[in-house]
Amino acid sequence: MIDISISEFLSLPESEKITHIKGQAVLYAQQFDREQLDYLCELSDACRKLRKSKDGADFMATLLSDKTALNFFVQPSSRTFLSFNMAQSILGMRRMSLRDAKISSISKGETLADSIRTFLSYVDMIIMRHSDADAGALAYWIAAKSHRSELVNGKKVPLPIISGGSGTKQHPTQSLLDIYTLEKSLEEVGGIDGKKIMLVGDLKRGRTVRSLSYLMKNYKDVELYFAAPEVYQMEEDILQFCDDNGIKYKKIDSIKEGLEEVDAVYMTRIQDEWDGLGAGAGHVKASDAFTFKKEYLDLMKPHCCLMHPLPKRDEIDVELDYIDDKRIVYWRQERNGMWMRVALIAKLFGVDKDIIARLAETE
Amino acid sequence: MIDISISEFLSLPESEKITHIKGQAVLYAQQFDREQLDYLCELSDACRKLRKSKDGADFMATLLSDKTALNFFVQPSSRTFLSFNMAQSILGMRRMSLRDAKISSISKGETLADSIRTFLSYVDMIIMRHSDADAGALAYWIAAKSHRSELVNGKKVPLPIISGGSGTKQHPTQSLLDIYTLEKSLEEVGGIDGKKIMLVGDLKRGRTVRSLSYLMKNYKDVELYFAAPEVYQMEEDILQFCDDNGIKYKKIDSIKEGLEEVDAVYMTRIQDEWDGLGAGAGHVKASDAFTFKKEYLDLMKPHCCLMHPLPKRDEIDVELDYIDDKRIVYWRQERNGMWMRVALIAKLFGVDKDIIARLAETE
Amino acid sequence: MIDISISEFLSLPESEKITHIKGQAVLYAQQFDREQLDYLCELSDACRKLRKSKDGADFMATLLSDKTALNFFVQPSSRTFLSFNMAQSILGMRRMSLRDAKISSISKGETLADSIRTFLSYVDMIIMRHSDADAGALAYWIAAKSHRSELVNGKKVPLPIISGGSGTKQHPTQSLLDIYTLEKSLEEVGGIDGKKIMLVGDLKRGRTVRSLSYLMKNYKDVELYFAAPEVYQMEEDILQFCDDNGIKYKKIDSIKEGLEEVDAVYMTRIQDEWDGLGAGAGHVKASDAFTFKKEYLDLMKPHCCLMHPLPKRDEIDVELDYIDDKRIVYWRQERNGMWMRVALIAKLFGVDKDIIARLAETE
Repeated sequence: MIDISISEFLSLPESEKITHIKGQAVLYAQQFDREQLDYLCELSDACRKLRKSKDGADFMATLLSDKTALNFFVQPSSRTFLSFNMAQSILGMRRMSLRDAKISSISKGETLADSIRTFLSYVDMIIMRHSDADAGALAYWIAAKSHRSELVNGKKVPLPIISGGSGTKQHPTQSLLDIYTLEKSLEEVGGIDGKKIMLVGDLKRGRTVRSLSYLMKNYKDVELYFAAPEVYQMEEDILQFCDDNGIKYKKIDSIKEGLEEVDAVYMTRIQDEWDGLGAGAGHVKASDAFTFKKEYLDLMKPHCCLMHPLPKRDEIDVELDYIDDKRIVYWRQERNGMWMRVALIAKLFGVDKDIIARLAETE
Repeated sequence: MIDISISEFLSLPESEKITHIKGQAVLYAQQFDREQLDYLCELSDACRKLRKSKDGADFMATLLSDKTALNFFVQPSSRTFLSFNMAQSILGMRRMSLRDAKISSISKGETLADSIRTFLSYVDMIIMRHSDADAGALAYWIAAKSHRSELVNGKKVPLPIISGGSGTKQHPTQSLLDIYTLEKSLEEVGGIDGKKIMLVGDLKRGRTVRSLSYLMKNYKDVELYFAAPEVYQMEEDILQFCDDNGIKYKKIDSIKEGLEEVDAVYMTRIQDEWDGLGAGAGHVKASDAFTFKKEYLDLMKPHCCLMHPLPKRDEIDVELDYIDDKRIVYWRQERNGMWMRVALIAKLFGVDKDIIARLAETE
Repeated sequence: MIDISISEFLSLPESEKITHIKGQAVLYAQQFDREQLDYLCELSDACRKLRKSKDGADFMATLLSDKTALNFFVQPSSRTFLSFNMAQSILGMRRMSLRDAKISSISKGETLADSIRTFLSYVDMIIMRHSDADAGALAYWIAAKSHRSELVNGKKVPLPIISGGSGTKQHPTQSLLDIYTLEKSLEEVGGIDGKKIMLVGDLKRGRTVRSLSYLMKNYKDVELYFAAPEVYQMEEDILQFCDDNGIKYKKIDSIKEGLEEVDAVYMTRIQDEWDGLGAGAGHVKASDAFTFKKEYLDLMKPHCCLMHPLPKRDEIDVELDYIDDKRIVYWRQERNGMWMRVALIAKLFGVDKDIIARLAETE
């Protein structure tokens, strides 16, 4: 199904890899266009509604009851792992997981390529989180070469591969759930188009803010505010991408500087696990200018939402966690991610139309 | 749903925490009264009977097929973990597990409170085993504060939290299964009321014997025999509790001293993993006077049962493991625990009446 | 159900253990006769066919929906673990797994016997991979002594125990899937009878080639070619077994020496994890004479198949992995293993006839 060698494929730029992939794997935030994003948001809403009743839940659990997903996460994860597992479970998929290379045949010297080929001998989809930025592309190439395939809407396609985060660069499903959260939070003021969004914290190594920036090219007149200490500022490739795609942006020196102007604040944690000292070795405290304080709520617009991909540490005042203010959306953002992953998997296996049809029947 | 702060809640004595919890979480053995204990035993029997047929099993697996449980066990466990998983599976629940904090976001500096709040964004119930005695109470408070809730018998309640053992103090579901095992073993001689029960071994640090002692306040005229070397004798707070609640007790210096008088012998293992040397670092052998020997069977009453929460080491003669004597109940005690956990979860989600109704139809 | 002591049972030779087991556990390759092997191959085909439709898949998932399997793997495994999980899932079984003794009660000093007895208090079948060659026999003895049992074809039998690989000696389900792969690959030339099969690599410590050699006694006029460096040659006990059972064999010094004569080539990896240095400590490279090269395809018979139990390292030219040549069967061999395990479990629980009957209805 794919006619170039693995080394040729891996050496292509992301934009050309995306052309090959044709939406049959989910590896890069940039692969989604506006129409797809809108449809996935609509489908997420439909999944959420249909599953409110036990009947709807039981129907959804029949859709992929003959399919199995492997959650292959060799980096730490709570949210993404649980959320994908929930999504699979909601669609009735059987689930396997592999989280520790030591108990796998990798410990006997098996290559990653052979491991993936093996997984695809058994399961029907792989979700993978891996430190190697190319692991997802490798897995897609193997899926496209494998003699097993999936029949989706009458067409043979490779078994789906979804990235659950790769290296420091990409976390495509996180950016989909961020889009969904933004669209829902800004629903009453016309959605994302024309809005100002502040991204705060470790922009340099935060794959979530990088991926989200890519997706902004699909929305009209968005302006990004990059609020970070210089050492953690957004990298040149993203600034270039913004310039090339007509996304306005400015760098600012504190949250407060832009707080009254923006429609969304997207906080991030300083990713000191990449500092080479190992996770938790020496946590860097968020500096005062980039910490969200309780009193900032009074400065925010009435519809402005406060987001965070989580986990957080001290960059958001802990008192905000259990305040009843609908603008604090980071906990709801987690569950939005689950619904978006249900939608995404349903779409990849071609059962999205069944969900929409069933919902129409019951409404 | 709860109107005090987390620090206020955690500083309350257990008795007041129990008042707040209103049976919507299972954290303390003392929270159960006689009526509840009797009902749970009856319900356990009903679950066991209904599941004997494939039809009954398939019916039970529909009851909570749209609910998901997280088994969050950060201390070693075989029995409790498997038993809860089985119980969930019998009721058709989807199951997730997290057993290693290193692969979770805790490794990125996330607080336990944030982790629990995150889990509750996805799943519908948490079973937790944690070294921190307050972890369960913390989880209950978060569940009560969360915007997600469960509809049970027409009433919105917090998502259920069940302790699977916390610190050295509490293991409430173990004490429920012990009660169920005692009631079943002593069924033909009128149940627990009026009986003498010997607790043997490491009473100081054995949370199972502590929890069981608490529950004895619900039974009439029970007398406890505490058989332990002085260094492992029952702690003062439990003796005080017995005094306050009219539970008779005596301390004895060997199993033999009370063996011919009692109606149940409850053996425990010396918990040397709390000795600060780490699990398995230096196992303390049970001393001769507190080891149950094969010849003791001849001294036991015909209805007296031999229990153990397990795991055991050398405190029971290994020859007893496969002798066919109905008084040796420690293996059956394990499976009783599974049924009790089915009953408990069914009750928490309000599907207990469906089980009883279905059983009535089929009998 | 078994009337000898555990120490007596463990001291019996394998042939006498097999007599006791009566097919109710799967521990040794030698326990299968020709009729059973043929039936399991036929049943594997039936399972594969029936599950092609969603209807067939959903039917199969009802068969053991009230049964639970425990996958107790305390040695690394990817293939066997995933493959058994898939097989259980296809038959609708609930699945538990235990892969790390540190998080189990073994860390509190529990014996393996007590752990197994505990597992059998909850689950209905154990698949176990263990470094101790006797662990499977121990588990069978406990299952036969336990008060829990399974009703199969109207007869009470012990809960099934299946070895997922034990020590360096046995991997019985691997040899079943190898037989199935050989039969399918050689289908058009009359199956295994009368064929020449080359076994290559680490024959000394490769439990797969040892188990496969045992099974050859069931086929007529098979000749084995043992291609290995002297230090890794097949051990004396297997040579003796071949002599005793009329299996012809010859030792050869390179793959090339026998390549044009044989009907199947079975490659294996040098198992240097048994070298005492620990897995991965110092990988031994396969020597040139025992490495399968791409150009060898031109020397192989048109029906000769290239097999490997996997994981592999450098003993097969990596270029062969994605060549479209139907003789390269090692990836398909993996999936064959899944179907064989479905068949085996279905047979052990007596639902094999339901599968065959349903397939007959739908054809």
